[in-house]
Amino acid sequence: MKTGLSETIERLSQADDSTDFFYKYDNKEAMPSVDILKEIISLARSILFPGYFGNSNVNGDTLIYHIGLNIEKLLTLLTGQIKAGLCFEQFDKKSGREDLCKTAKEKAIALLKLLPDIKEQLHTDVIAAYNGDPAAKSPGEIIFCYPGVRAISSYRFANALLRLGVPLIPRIISEMAHSETGIDIHPGATIGNYFTIDHGTGVVIGETTVIGNNVKIYQGVTLGAKSFPLDKDGNPIKGVDRHPKIGNNVIIYSNSTVLGNIKVGDGAIIGGNIWVDVEVPAGARLIQQEKRSE
Amino acid sequence: MKTGLSETIERLSQADDSTDFFYKYDNKEAMPSVDILKEIISLARSILFPGYFGNSNVNGDTLIYHIGLNIEKLLTLLTGQIKAGLCFEQFDKKSGREDLCKTAKEKAIALLKLLPDIKEQLHTDVIAAYNGDPAAKSPGEIIFCYPGVRAISSYRFANALLRLGVPLIPRIISEMAHSETGIDIHPGATIGNYFTIDHGTGVVIGETTVIGNNVKIYQGVTLGAKSFPLDKDGNPIKGVDRHPKIGNNVIIYSNSTVLGNIKVGDGAIIGGNIWVDVEVPAGARLIQQEKRSE
Amino acid sequence: MKTGLSETIERLSQADDSTDFFYKYDNKEAMPSVDILKEIISLARSILFPGYFGNSNVNGDTLIYHIGLNIEKLLTLLTGQIKAGLCFEQFDKKSGREDLCKTAKEKAIALLKLLPDIKEQLHTDVIAAYNGDPAAKSPGEIIFCYPGVRAISSYRFANALLRLGVPLIPRIISEMAHSETGIDIHPGATIGNYFTIDHGTGVVIGETTVIGNNVKIYQGVTLGAKSFPLDKDGNPIKGVDRHPKIGNNVIIYSNSTVLGNIKVGDGAIIGGNIWVDVEVPAGARLIQQEKRSE
Amino acid sequence: MKTGLSETIERLSQADDSTDFFYKYDNKEAMPSVDILKEIISLARSILFPGYFGNSNVNGDTLIYHIGLNIEKLLTLLTGQIKAGLCFEQFDKKSGREDLCKTAKEKAIALLKLLPDIKEQLHTDVIAAYNGDPAAKSPGEIIFCYPGVRAISSYRFANALLRLGVPLIPRIISEMAHSETGIDIHPGATIGNYFTIDHGTGVVIGETTVIGNNVKIYQGVTLGAKSFPLDKDGNPIKGVDRHPKIGNNVIIYSNSTVLGNIKVGDGAIIGGNIWVDVEVPAGARLIQQEKRSE
Amino acid sequence: MKTGLSETIERLSQADDSTDFFYKYDNKEAMPSVDILKEIISLARSILFPGYFGNSNVNGDTLIYHIGLNIEKLLTLLTGQIKAGLCFEQFDKKSGREDLCKTAKEKAIALLKLLPDIKEQLHTDVIAAYNGDPAAKSPGEIIFCYPGVRAISSYRFANALLRLGVPLIPRIISEMAHSETGIDIHPGATIGNYFTIDHGTGVVIGETTVIGNNVKIYQGVTLGAKSFPLDKDGNPIKGVDRHPKIGNNVIIYSNSTVLGNIKVGDGAIIGGNIWVDVEVPAGARLIQQEKRSE
Amino acid sequence: MKTGLSETIERLSQADDSTDFFYKYDNKEAMPSVDILKEIISLARSILFPGYFGNSNVNGDTLIYHIGLNIEKLLTLLTGQIKAGLCFEQFDKKSGREDLCKTAKEKAIALLKLLPDIKEQLHTDVIAAYNGDPAAKSPGEIIFCYPGVRAISSYRFANALLRLGVPLIPRIISEMAHSETGIDIHPGATIGNYFTIDHGTGVVIGETTVIGNNVKIYQGVTLGAKSFPLDKDGNPIKGVDRHPKIGNNVIIYSNSTVLGNIKVGDGAIIGGNIWVDVEVPAGARLIQQEKRSE
Repeated sequence: MKTGLSETIERLSQADDSTDFFYKYDNKEAMPSVDILKEIISLARSILFPGYFGNSNVNGDTLIYHIGLNIEKLLTLLTGQIKAGLCFEQFDKKSGREDLCKTAKEKAIALLKLLPDIKEQLHTDVIAAYNGDPAAKSPGEIIFCYPGVRAISSYRFANALLRLGVPLIPRIISEMAHSETGIDIHPGATIGNYFTIDHGTGVVIGETTVIGNNVKIYQGVTLGAKSFPLDKDGNPIKGVDRHPKIGNNVIIYSNSTVLGNIKVGDGAIIGGNIWVDVEVPAGARLIQQEKRSE
Repeated sequence: MKTGLSETIERLSQADDSTDFFYKYDNKEAMPSVDILKEIISLARSILFPGYFGNSNVNGDTLIYHIGLNIEKLLTLLTGQIKAGLCFEQFDKKSGREDLCKTAKEKAIALLKLLPDIKEQLHTDVIAAYNGDPAAKSPGEIIFCYPGVRAISSYRFANALLRLGVPLIPRIISEMAHSETGIDIHPGATIGNYFTIDHGTGVVIGETTVIGNNVKIYQGVTLGAKSFPLDKDGNPIKGVDRHPKIGNNVIIYSNSTVLGNIKVGDGAIIGGNIWVDVEVPAGARLIQQEKRSE
Repeated sequence: MKTGLSETIERLSQADDSTDFFYKYDNKEAMPSVDILKEIISLARSILFPGYFGNSNVNGDTLIYHIGLNIEKLLTLLTGQIKAGLCFEQFDKKSGREDLCKTAKEKAIALLKLLPDIKEQLHTDVIAAYNGDPAAKSPGEIIFCYPGVRAISSYRFANALLRLGVPLIPRIISEMAHSETGIDIHPGATIGNYFTIDHGTGVVIGETTVIGNNVKIYQGVTLGAKSFPLDKDGNPIKGVDRHPKIGNNVIIYSNSTVLGNIKVGDGAIIGGNIWVDVEVPAGARLIQQEKRSE
Repeated sequence: MKTGLSETIERLSQADDSTDFFYKYDNKEAMPSVDILKEIISLARSILFPGYFGNSNVNGDTLIYHIGLNIEKLLTLLTGQIKAGLCFEQFDKKSGREDLCKTAKEKAIALLKLLPDIKEQLHTDVIAAYNGDPAAKSPGEIIFCYPGVRAISSYRFANALLRLGVPLIPRIISEMAHSETGIDIHPGATIGNYFTIDHGTGVVIGETTVIGNNVKIYQGVTLGAKSFPLDKDGNPIKGVDRHPKIGNNVIIYSNSTVLGNIKVGDGAIIGGNIWVDVEVPAGARLIQQEKRSE
Repeated sequence: MKTGLSETIERLSQADDSTDFFYKYDNKEAMPSVDILKEIISLARSILFPGYFGNSNVNGDTLIYHIGLNIEKLLTLLTGQIKAGLCFEQFDKKSGREDLCKTAKEKAIALLKLLPDIKEQLHTDVIAAYNGDPAAKSPGEIIFCYPGVRAISSYRFANALLRLGVPLIPRIISEMAHSETGIDIHPGATIGNYFTIDHGTGVVIGETTVIGNNVKIYQGVTLGAKSFPLDKDGNPIKGVDRHPKIGNNVIIYSNSTVLGNIKVGDGAIIGGNIWVDVEVPAGARLIQQEKRSE
Repeated sequence: MKTGLSETIERLSQADDSTDFFYKYDNKEAMPSVDILKEIISLARSILFPGYFGNSNVNGDTLIYHIGLNIEKLLTLLTGQIKAGLCFEQFDKKSGREDLCKTAKEKAIALLKLLPDIKEQLHTDVIAAYNGDPAAKSPGEIIFCYPGVRAISSYRFANALLRLGVPLIPRIISEMAHSETGIDIHPGATIGNYFTIDHGTGVVIGETTVIGNNVKIYQGVTLGAKSFPLDKDGNPIKGVDRHPKIGNNVIIYSNSTVLGNIKVGDGAIIGGNIWVDVEVPAGARLIQQEKRSE
């Protein structure tokens, strides 16, 4: 190249086989695809809230054709992505490719069979958001517009995949929702019914968090790991149960940070902009103290 | 289906006519479309800031052809979306479809006639951002890059639609801007001239907020409802005027939360990370007190 | 137009030649294009982390063809965008168009030659994120899913462009990453190796910030300008070195705000939700004081 | 415009309301769309030959979901195009738009109910092509590759629309097939079962042609109007039955021209490159006479 | 590459600088683009027959905005393609790139100024097709559906470009029309008003053909070069005026071949499937003689 | 469905497992894809005539990167399509899917290794077309514009695939070229060097045709099977060698039909519009006899 870039090309092409930064996979396997995962989420939404999503007229008479087709498409796409996730995780490849195909399809079918239950649970979330927001005109508006509901939908879908033992894909789905809504719910979290996130930008819910029923949290709330106690290398200790356990009927206002494997009791209300790293008793009401006028 | 999913399809297809979770609309009406609304916002931007948006060369001689065409396209697209919004709201359908068409077109025309005023007001916002940011090289950079200006543009457009009585569509537009910028301004808020939002991720401005002229707020600031006083069912009391009233020349720093129908007086400066739920006098300067070294 | 919009079209078409709000450029120059810049970032990622990005199978044997082609495409696209950036900045146009072409190509080549170094530096960031996150299963998961790595990649690319004297384009790239991840790093900031941003939504890092090696910050953290000292017009004083200087091995927890040209010493740990505007000594541990139960 | 084109724009914009060359239609009606008609033909093919067309896996278990959905899409798209055709034809518009909608939907439903019969008839055409071509390996190859079958499919679909009284649309469909295959069959022609067109480029079959069963014609064959007898203005006489009537079991070889309302008897064979303008008896074999060596 | 293809890649990459089969152009120049030329033809059609083409509602009030915009777009696109054509032709490049830009823009403007005249002439062709076809229901149907009119439109546009001295581009346009309609009119041909091509597949009209007014030709007609007289190398003699000169009011039926620089007199009628290589007197009527029953 | 179409859907969904008209393939296999085959042809053209096709700047220095990448893409795409072709042919599936994958890849590699030879042969065709056409300005114009060269390129590619034993795919490629150019060359034909097709619409070259070197044929020429001798069921006799054998240096003018397994000797010239079904001696010149003036 006249531009003298050939040396740069050489340097960039030095593929060290042992490196973690170059993903070398078999010709026949693709990487997971964010575009296909978007289509999967979109299909799932059109099944879970028919008529609201899916770009199609649908009525009581034709609903079964739509559901039938969309379930079939979901099965095909999801099987492919689950397989890609399995390949990503598996380096030794002892089990062989055919096994991965079969495993992927079994997991995809198992996920699809959970959709009616996911649908029911999501309905409780919509009802909670509608009842809790003075500005919402109808449940339909909640379903169609509210980022909280979108993030929770993706979480419930990703969480089901994770519980079925699917690697990587749940994380990608949660990051897609994070990018779309600013809400970052780790698919490993456990969240009860009637869950509401209002506005939601900046919300972080960590991997080992447990949340009860009828909980509402606002934008900027972190349910995170208390990582002051570091290991001897200065890194957070891995693998421990390190996130909060939130009871039923709790409200946490904007930008508060709840850290560590602590308990927040039933009915507690935590005001905004607070740093909470000790247990909060049931029914407590915490708010930020003092301000100072300069 | 050999996969044994037929029962799942049956369960998912049970369309209960009374449910809120299945939107059954007339064949001839479409749901509001996020894609078309994106095109609408894009057309509006190309009219409000010619040359910066719209993917077209445009100069003084050809400007009128561009504006003429874009106004015409906006009229068509906006009429369709307003009609979809009216259908979404209206369930009894007493007024009939033809009326909706006529109403939608009238509202679209009324909105277009407001564009020159919106343009003027947005120019004040750009000037304020340029004057207030040491890093900005030119007003053009503000227009082309700054998420604050994008969010405020969408807000001013959505606010005008809301004042014309258009349902749902203003909310969708504000959520689109929210997803793009992390800034969530309810279209019902009232905001004066020379308004600046810096960085902006996590900003929330509620429905009944009123903001004066020459106000600047930073990322993570919430102007929200103080919802501690709940009704007897444990939900926030609906319909009341519940958000802050911000005076002129106010600055609010990052991550602060101002809650409830309280007054923040002219010229007040609120530091970052504070929880404010009582009136702030004119000229006051509030900052977070104390920190503790462990 | 039968809709009576002709007067509106007239008003909107009044092109005042002196206005900042109408960008009139030469027919032959295009505005910078967000779509092309997305393609540029995508190509860069496929070069920096082969196999993870780029939608192509690639192995050790074919890597050089991929790198060669992608470098060539990057050169073409980047040259065009740099030229558009130069045009945007330059109004007098004394230097002439041919010079801009030549300058743009030289800067594009210079950037490409920096890619191997950028790649090395990014690898340290991936390693730091992997070591610091108990939930991460592999470095590959970090590369493929973590918004922090995406934002840092875009920052390192934009920062290199800025140091080469390219106007506007670095800011657009940083705003694209901001919109995608909620993380807003000004391309002018200086950031060392092994840098981690966890979750990241709401993070703001200002133009004159300096960050050492092995620093970790969480969502909602602001490293901003302390702008209380205003100039006589009430605006922040422009051009001064106004952002924090963070040492090595520092951790800053979620939603904290560090403001002004202050020093945070090596090994300091700053807890969440704090407002910091004075120097923090090396090794210090700051947390929010007190809460109050109502 | 600095290019001096403003006068040209003026001249081109002089819209004479009486002209045939400027189609001014109501805002709410669209022109027929070739792109949507392509989608219609594509949907029809996926219904008539499942598995061969439609980009979808389909098996015995899921076929009914596919057919159900595709019929529903066809109904929506076809109704829109039929309405556009009706608008194109109707200038007085006495009947009103609502009537057009209703009429269009009725005609679309009527067409869909004919699909099973069209499918049966097309199967005879495929069988005839397979039996008559030494190069064809399977009926599937005929369905998937042969332009003759594509042209006849489009003809049978367009012919059904024409018989239902749909204006314009059948002609557009036949021209689409003409462009794709080089075969121009007027939708008004009447064609029996087991019809074959081999290769087909240049074939023309006129509006009032009648063709029996088991007929085969080759590329370049014209079944046209004998227009030597002109009217007093020098134009072909309109509206008369002016095309050939072909019996059963006839073969016509390449590039022959059969003109006028003449009868070609059962079992006749017409060689290539002949001009035929008089009746051909049953069982006759015509070939071009003589050649001359220079 | 493990597939052993590296030698093949080597062989295919041997770029002999003197070869005609490898087009090496300057980085800044693109090849002519069929996709952009399609857009150009599409824009031209929307200007020449408003409302019929262009995917836009357009009425008397908004026509001027549409024409203005489309002329501007045509100017930009056409200038680019003309420049690409000039580059393709020009190998010595003495004149320099800036000159090519200027020349290209001048030629594009000159072409646009001819559009009103081309429009008038095309209207005569539409009238002739409508008067001459018993099956046509309206001039609108001719404009919207008839391949003959499409081919003639493209020819008249390409012919104007050729007369302005634009290389290559006219040929590409004529081949695009050839592919779409099966009608191959060399842009160098000279064709009068009221010209009709019926059906048209297989029509060929050579470079030095001259056709009078009110001529009609059918599918498969060749107006070609009589190339029996070859040069000493066995190739047709180049550069001579070698195609037919057709008078006024002539009709030529399907599949006839008229070869060489011969005169076909006014009012002559040539039947189908004939080989004509000698002069045809005015008013003559030629038909194929004899056939033979075997 | 309220439209009463449910019975129609039932009828259309009756999937008879034994029918030829419903293609039921394994979930994991796709039908051959015309879109992917278009991409394959497009890649092949960019390799065979670099710079002319492929939408990329390419020069001597970067050619090898382009060729390397395109060969790799071709390998992937071609392997997939060859496998789809093998599946289409194979109904018993004894050999198993893994075998098909391996076979497909082997055949794809074998085809790619033939590309340098195909390239050389195509160069002779371009040279012949350039030398034989008085209107051609450069070989580049031939490569870029002439449909004859496109059809011959596709033929030579399809012919190589057929000789490698790939089913179905060669036929689809030849029909794609047929649709694009109106030229229908069966991939089974054998064609020498320096072959020219001028204009070409309506040309048909049958499966068992053999053509020598330096042959030129014009539009509408058929080299077909003489099918008068039918079998006892009235169908052409299958499998026999039934098409013409054309010698070297032969010219055949427009619309002539040469039928049956007959020999056309070296240097023969056949005029237009003739029906030829007996042997033509070397050096002969045949033209249509007589016409009649009415």
